[in-house]
Amino acid sequence: MKTLVLGGDGFCGWPTSLHLASQGHDVLILDNLARRSIADRISSPSLTPIASIEKRIAAAQSIGSIAFEFCDIATDCLRLKEILAQFQPDTVVHFAEQRSAPYSMLGDSERRFTVDNNINGTNNLMSSLVELGQRPHVVHLGTMGVYGYNDDFGEIPEGYLDVTVKQTQKDVSICYPGNPGSIYHMTKVLDHTIMQFYAKNWGFRITDLHQGIVWGTDTELTRSHPQLINRFDYDGEYGTVLNRLLSQSQVGHPLTVYGTGGQSRAFIHIQDTARCIHLACGNAPDEGSLPQVFNQIAEVHTVRVLAQMISDKTGVEIGFQDNPRKEAAENQLRVSNQGLRSLGFEPITLDDHLMKEIESTVVAFKDRIDHSVIDSKARW
Amino acid sequence: MKTLVLGGDGFCGWPTSLHLASQGHDVLILDNLARRSIADRISSPSLTPIASIEKRIAAAQSIGSIAFEFCDIATDCLRLKEILAQFQPDTVVHFAEQRSAPYSMLGDSERRFTVDNNINGTNNLMSSLVELGQRPHVVHLGTMGVYGYNDDFGEIPEGYLDVTVKQTQKDVSICYPGNPGSIYHMTKVLDHTIMQFYAKNWGFRITDLHQGIVWGTDTELTRSHPQLINRFDYDGEYGTVLNRLLSQSQVGHPLTVYGTGGQSRAFIHIQDTARCIHLACGNAPDEGSLPQVFNQIAEVHTVRVLAQMISDKTGVEIGFQDNPRKEAAENQLRVSNQGLRSLGFEPITLDDHLMKEIESTVVAFKDRIDHSVIDSKARW
Repeated sequence: MKTLVLGGDGFCGWPTSLHLASQGHDVLILDNLARRSIADRISSPSLTPIASIEKRIAAAQSIGSIAFEFCDIATDCLRLKEILAQFQPDTVVHFAEQRSAPYSMLGDSERRFTVDNNINGTNNLMSSLVELGQRPHVVHLGTMGVYGYNDDFGEIPEGYLDVTVKQTQKDVSICYPGNPGSIYHMTKVLDHTIMQFYAKNWGFRITDLHQGIVWGTDTELTRSHPQLINRFDYDGEYGTVLNRLLSQSQVGHPLTVYGTGGQSRAFIHIQDTARCIHLACGNAPDEGSLPQVFNQIAEVHTVRVLAQMISDKTGVEIGFQDNPRKEAAENQLRVSNQGLRSLGFEPITLDDHLMKEIESTVVAFKDRIDHSVIDSKARW
Repeated sequence: MKTLVLGGDGFCGWPTSLHLASQGHDVLILDNLARRSIADRISSPSLTPIASIEKRIAAAQSIGSIAFEFCDIATDCLRLKEILAQFQPDTVVHFAEQRSAPYSMLGDSERRFTVDNNINGTNNLMSSLVELGQRPHVVHLGTMGVYGYNDDFGEIPEGYLDVTVKQTQKDVSICYPGNPGSIYHMTKVLDHTIMQFYAKNWGFRITDLHQGIVWGTDTELTRSHPQLINRFDYDGEYGTVLNRLLSQSQVGHPLTVYGTGGQSRAFIHIQDTARCIHLACGNAPDEGSLPQVFNQIAEVHTVRVLAQMISDKTGVEIGFQDNPRKEAAENQLRVSNQGLRSLGFEPITLDDHLMKEIESTVVAFKDRIDHSVIDSKARW
């Protein structure tokens, strides 16, 4: 299977690209290396010393067929179309988006960059495929954050909500009403609408993976060679909550919890991200279907419980802070993940792996932690 | 009231700007004149000989306070912010979007332009207002085409659908599920999601006007001076259906009806567009509300009935063509327009005005009709 991975140099993209290559996919990564340049701009390099993309690709040759082309899909359609015409992908995995909610809320230029980059990237991809007459299966990384947290809707289903229309008393399945909590999350709602239209009008097979918060950094493959190491962000903008807390614990920084920490969120380990995407690639929906949605999550926890687990293991205390975000102080969260489970997904859970993660990555590089980037600068 | 009209040089924007100025608004038009340059690109100038924007503004001084600044809001945020900071609008009326469904479906570059222009324009506006701390009432031109045509949902309500969630048996009002029929209509679904997030997070008061197909060309004010004349498009891309049929009838071209002509659509006269927007400007929703949605329509007809009416009056026959669009051959359509009616909107209907329109505009300029632009080049 020829698989194009857009954004394959990023935190999820890189381990997924390696995993797909190891499973026999012929992988071509496109990336504009935006995650590296943003890290420079916010003065927060990866905790782990990641190799250049050239060295990564060289080291990855032992794993499988994997190549790289520099391309900014949001701005360089000509190059994108050249590459598509030559590579003829069976599957396109689309990670090529600005993926930090706090970054998207920093200010005017970050709001505009996030919308411009994410929406034009997705539309350019789909429009180029129409132009070329190609119909690969498109696997898009969405987010659980598109759903919002609305108790009236019950357990969060996979993309679609069964309702009865009051006026007609007809039972219908509708696209789950989006209720994003940041500009970033909003772009994922927009992406879904875009892909839904392309699926309807041009017969694309689409899988949208509404992913939980990713934790961890290593997979079997990124551990297998120093130049394959994955990036690890612990700063207030790009560090996902569990990774931030783990890093803080290693340098004795009070564990940053916003508000009461009663926010329930869904989590998934980075190794499972790669496995789930491999499963999704192999299970396209039928042509003519609505986009297929899977909730790519392993388990649900409150931030407070996570922080307490880490505090208990490390002795570092929790530092409650005023919540810089507009979100409910406390919420319940129940999420279906039957789609991927029915395809064989068996999640890695926090209890199994939590301490291993601390030992393997954060301890190894703790001297590189820069205290000044720990707190988020975004307010909304 | 200081009112900024984005896209105020266009087909709806110009008569609306004049109407608002005549009603005492202090109007500033921003426009990148894209409609004029697209007319050049598709070799289809306005049937009516419209004046330059400079001459328009000069002639409009007798009507009220009205000025113009050249600005491309999708690409020139710096200029947009300068103008906003100086003008300090109470209301922003946002027409500044590529508004033709067929144009948006012509090919790759038109798909990309429509998404890039419309989405970045809307997001740049909202983000700039956040940056500047301004909270004008934003009145956005949406389209009836966001709803799609789904009989299961009953009469189309104004933006929100009352449903019972099967899982919880809770009664909730949800944003009406978007089901756009073209890239253009899709951008209006995206715009609504964007404005909904800005309303939620930053307290904007938003009115989204889901407008029907506009017909006619003149208003009292555009008729009042030769340099105030409004544009009139009759080509396959920008001509709205009734205006196209009227033009065709004047040159003996068979009246173009796609498929069976059983498509039911909602219509509104251009004079009513201006009046409705004036009503909307004066009736902002409360801060903290969801966007207020009005269906800006007068009446519903099938295309076949419209064509028959014109054929009966003019003796020109109907020319049925294979439908170049993916849409239902026949559909029912019932639409609520209670919001604007409750504010005093009394629609102009086709029966009253149809012949007047033919006489006043199309006859006067029929020698300018170019047969080669009548058929649509878009296929989807």
